[in-house]
Amino acid sequence: MEKLSILKIGGNCIEDKALLADFLKAFADIPHKKILVHGGGNLATKLSQQLGIRQQMRDGRRITGPDTLRIVTMVYAGDINKNMVADLQALQCNAIGLTGADANLLPARKRKTQDGIDYGFVGDIADTIPSQPWKLFLDNGLTPVMSAITHDRQGQLLNTNADTIAQEIARALSRHYTVGLIYLFEKQGVLEDPTDPDSVLPHIDRSLFEALKSNHKIVDGMIPKLENAFNALDAGVQAIQIGHAADLTYLLNGKAGTRVVSKEHDLKNMLP
Amino acid sequence: MEKLSILKIGGNCIEDKALLADFLKAFADIPHKKILVHGGGNLATKLSQQLGIRQQMRDGRRITGPDTLRIVTMVYAGDINKNMVADLQALQCNAIGLTGADANLLPARKRKTQDGIDYGFVGDIADTIPSQPWKLFLDNGLTPVMSAITHDRQGQLLNTNADTIAQEIARALSRHYTVGLIYLFEKQGVLEDPTDPDSVLPHIDRSLFEALKSNHKIVDGMIPKLENAFNALDAGVQAIQIGHAADLTYLLNGKAGTRVVSKEHDLKNMLP
Repeated sequence: MEKLSILKIGGNCIEDKALLADFLKAFADIPHKKILVHGGGNLATKLSQQLGIRQQMRDGRRITGPDTLRIVTMVYAGDINKNMVADLQALQCNAIGLTGADANLLPARKRKTQDGIDYGFVGDIADTIPSQPWKLFLDNGLTPVMSAITHDRQGQLLNTNADTIAQEIARALSRHYTVGLIYLFEKQGVLEDPTDPDSVLPHIDRSLFEALKSNHKIVDGMIPKLENAFNALDAGVQAIQIGHAADLTYLLNGKAGTRVVSKEHDLKNMLP
Repeated sequence: MEKLSILKIGGNCIEDKALLADFLKAFADIPHKKILVHGGGNLATKLSQQLGIRQQMRDGRRITGPDTLRIVTMVYAGDINKNMVADLQALQCNAIGLTGADANLLPARKRKTQDGIDYGFVGDIADTIPSQPWKLFLDNGLTPVMSAITHDRQGQLLNTNADTIAQEIARALSRHYTVGLIYLFEKQGVLEDPTDPDSVLPHIDRSLFEALKSNHKIVDGMIPKLENAFNALDAGVQAIQIGHAADLTYLLNGKAGTRVVSKEHDLKNMLP
């Protein structure tokens, strides 16, 4: 099967213009098929503040009301996505900027009220992602650049976590390609000690993850990121790497960041 | 050659939610290949006002500075485009929302300073529109929904007139399909007397256009719209119809609105 790299870049990296420019150059240079999934970071929050739209948080999670949905659609699918596409086109990468509504790439369901909390227009990916439109684009030299917006097939756009989108695409396409999934952010990888930036774990398996989680060494956004990663491994994704957006070339070779593995003793078989 | 309808819908129609819903239903029902090009109307102006960004006009034309470009990218390519795509998907139309940067669909050039006026990030379509990506989408059951944003292939997004985009796509694809071009707005067609909404011209050729223009019966936005239409006819576009967005079904059959013809005596040959 042909190689396919799926990269997810975090919002903080997008706001750092120099880092983003270097990342896009390295991304454009990847010689095999690739997909980029991007977050939005603080740009949506900034626009909300400028427009005087209050961001509602409940239990630390953002509620997506109609005004917030409009803002994330404008910022993620408009501003960030289209500027990235134009940058990649200038780098001779034939990028195409899409949401999950386009070509029905990512059908989703509005999240039901959980424990009395209505998250608003938040979408969870439906069981079946159709592989046909993805294959059409990838097999015809196009590089999808995905903003984290999906739809419910009834006309409603939905806000969906970008890490989850990357993982779900990786799962769905692992039947057609040898898929590598790379999560890029502003740290060197998964840290054994969150206060020590040099404590990057070269690899992590589920038992190490559970141990570090119960010791509160792995916290916040890293928990769902790793849970997504283990799910993707279980679903047939070949290799998962987590690391710094500036290290893309090394991450592609498994020579930087943290490799997520099913079980540590499988590691030898998985290294390139 | 297969039939292809290219429809351009104006910004005022988009702001009328009931009209837009009916239009999208009729559009989804078109049984042959189709492309939708949309303007943005006052929604970009409204967002600019909310953000306190002054709209600069010179000689009645909007100057697109960097802040305005960001706003039109967010409103046209984000909010309007993606909501239309979600609506069309709900109507079983496999829509894909794109700008001219995506897949390099519409390469453009930044407009040079004219008579001392710098229009900012305004793009004029480059001579050659590549037909390959258009054919890829159309021949695989996808319906492109185009916002009026292009790029210069050097990483710069550009704001481009939606009427012109519709015309340029029609020209470029008339070598591959039998192309009909339909301009939809909030009037019944081209009026012989702009003060009388019942004076719709059933057809107009270049000499009638020139006569009405010099009598100031055709004014403002209708002038470039018709100039675009005559250019498209000269370039091989089969049929051009101008009319009300509520009349799409009739316009497709040439039974409403104004038909643009090269010369009036050719009319008999062109009617369906």
